[in-house]
Amino acid sequence: MDVAIVGYGFLGRNLVASVVEKWGTIKALDPHFRLVGVSNSSGYAYSSEGLPLQGVLSSGGLGGYPGFTLGGTSLELLDKCSPDLVVELTPTNIVDGEPGLTHIQHSLRMGSHVVTANKGPLAHAYWELNAEAQRHGVMLLYEATVAGAVPLFSLVRECLQADRIMRMLGILNGTTNYILTRMHFEEIGFEAALKEAKERGLTERDPSIDIGGHDAACKAVILANAIMGKHVKLRDVKTRGIETISADAIRLAKRSGYTIKLVATVADRVEVAPRLVPINHPLCVHGTLNSVYLESDLAGELTLVGHGAGTQTVSAIMNDIITVLKHTSV
Amino acid sequence: MDVAIVGYGFLGRNLVASVVEKWGTIKALDPHFRLVGVSNSSGYAYSSEGLPLQGVLSSGGLGGYPGFTLGGTSLELLDKCSPDLVVELTPTNIVDGEPGLTHIQHSLRMGSHVVTANKGPLAHAYWELNAEAQRHGVMLLYEATVAGAVPLFSLVRECLQADRIMRMLGILNGTTNYILTRMHFEEIGFEAALKEAKERGLTERDPSIDIGGHDAACKAVILANAIMGKHVKLRDVKTRGIETISADAIRLAKRSGYTIKLVATVADRVEVAPRLVPINHPLCVHGTLNSVYLESDLAGELTLVGHGAGTQTVSAIMNDIITVLKHTSV
Repeated sequence: MDVAIVGYGFLGRNLVASVVEKWGTIKALDPHFRLVGVSNSSGYAYSSEGLPLQGVLSSGGLGGYPGFTLGGTSLELLDKCSPDLVVELTPTNIVDGEPGLTHIQHSLRMGSHVVTANKGPLAHAYWELNAEAQRHGVMLLYEATVAGAVPLFSLVRECLQADRIMRMLGILNGTTNYILTRMHFEEIGFEAALKEAKERGLTERDPSIDIGGHDAACKAVILANAIMGKHVKLRDVKTRGIETISADAIRLAKRSGYTIKLVATVADRVEVAPRLVPINHPLCVHGTLNSVYLESDLAGELTLVGHGAGTQTVSAIMNDIITVLKHTSV
Repeated sequence: MDVAIVGYGFLGRNLVASVVEKWGTIKALDPHFRLVGVSNSSGYAYSSEGLPLQGVLSSGGLGGYPGFTLGGTSLELLDKCSPDLVVELTPTNIVDGEPGLTHIQHSLRMGSHVVTANKGPLAHAYWELNAEAQRHGVMLLYEATVAGAVPLFSLVRECLQADRIMRMLGILNGTTNYILTRMHFEEIGFEAALKEAKERGLTERDPSIDIGGHDAACKAVILANAIMGKHVKLRDVKTRGIETISADAIRLAKRSGYTIKLVATVADRVEVAPRLVPINHPLCVHGTLNSVYLESDLAGELTLVGHGAGTQTVSAIMNDIITVLKHTSV
């Protein structure tokens, strides 16, 4: 299988390192597995023979890679190498999902399977992209888009095959959860906790995407569509952030055995808002952890807790890649 | 596919009810799905044409089913109907795994797939049973044996395909967790909490199996063998129960932000013992809930929380059955 990675950055490097580490597993599934192309925002590296993984890893930001095509675009790379599988890892753009949306559409139309960690395209065009994948008989997998390393979509697909999911609650944004955790345990105010989160590198350049609940809203849209078969768009999600949560409000909650968390609710309606959560409820996780609580007709209640971002997300991407390899080797 | 249920009781009834409810899903996977035999400790019902599911459900303890063979054994039933799939649901016997062990061995040797909720046979003969299944080219699935409705084994198999699990911690016994939860929150003693658990029907006839940690030890053995590839027997598990945990000990733990839980540890060594657990750790669940915390090389830390017993367990059995149906329909 010929593979291309589009949007080679932090996650891409960690992914290539994991591919090297798990080479035995991958080769056993597909002896012809090769990385034929890698791109970032400044250009791409390509080899029809397969790029040397160690060479890619040691090229720093890829610019140091010999034969790097400066100024080449990801779409040019895709046309050049016609990969069997495209791993799309460009940064999320919640406004219109670009450039990931175009990369994924282009790949599916070329008949390439797609694995992505980019929630923008799925939040904007979940059903359109799935229809495109079906039309071309290829897989579109996106385990890493919601709750990072927590394998939610494959859990529902493979481990709850008889269950019907009726309701989901999620703590899906690590930055806001860190802030609310500090406010709860240290009894500090929102501004002080936000400052700490910034110092720890937990905020995006524009922190309002996290703080305002918009990142969590994107994830709620994907959950609603992918797991509950709804037809929800980002504009349908009633979204409130945590900007106005006061130290007093949290102190009051704490006194009664509760805390305040930014909770995405996916049920009859889909919304993101600060909610009182009992401190002893499994959903109530702290720090940058993510959690998802499912209610289903057979299993009843099930909660998953894990890392929502960072290197651990590679677990989800690797699991998707292996799913594609197994599917195509049948 | 011809299916037999051996050990038709509480779980069996709930399973048949779920099969009725999910008939569309099942028929779509296998138009020839039939329940040909059902047995309990007093006899069996058999029909080569397939038993009417509603008739089985309304027969009460099966004894009321017309044509019930009083005194017939499960092995006779299996020989009579040669099912493609045997669902083994007899009560767990932690001393020697019988009669489940013989039922499962017999079924595998006949070339039947086996789905079971009975932890005794797997705790006693995990590798032997798996070798037998492999020898006969059939599946042996046991999702419901550990942490009931929490789909642990399929999660590791299908959702963490690239991960290597390095350590597991589990709260795997609902009865002891209920007792310890009451001791923590109500600040009552062990005897009072045990009495409550008895009144709520949460204890077995012999409560020492739960209280002494032996039930959790069986589950730890299955986890160690199935998920971490160890060769562990029940006698290898250092097991301590909760009988000697005092109200004082829990009060002391509580004061420092901890509580005491009966924790199964599966790492270099396998043991079950009361442990201090931080009250805010995802593993720390209350009431009769079960939890499993995994450490893996890629995903880092992942925790699953759900129902460890009761009707919800049917979710795990149904998932295993569907896995067999999909496997055989390829």
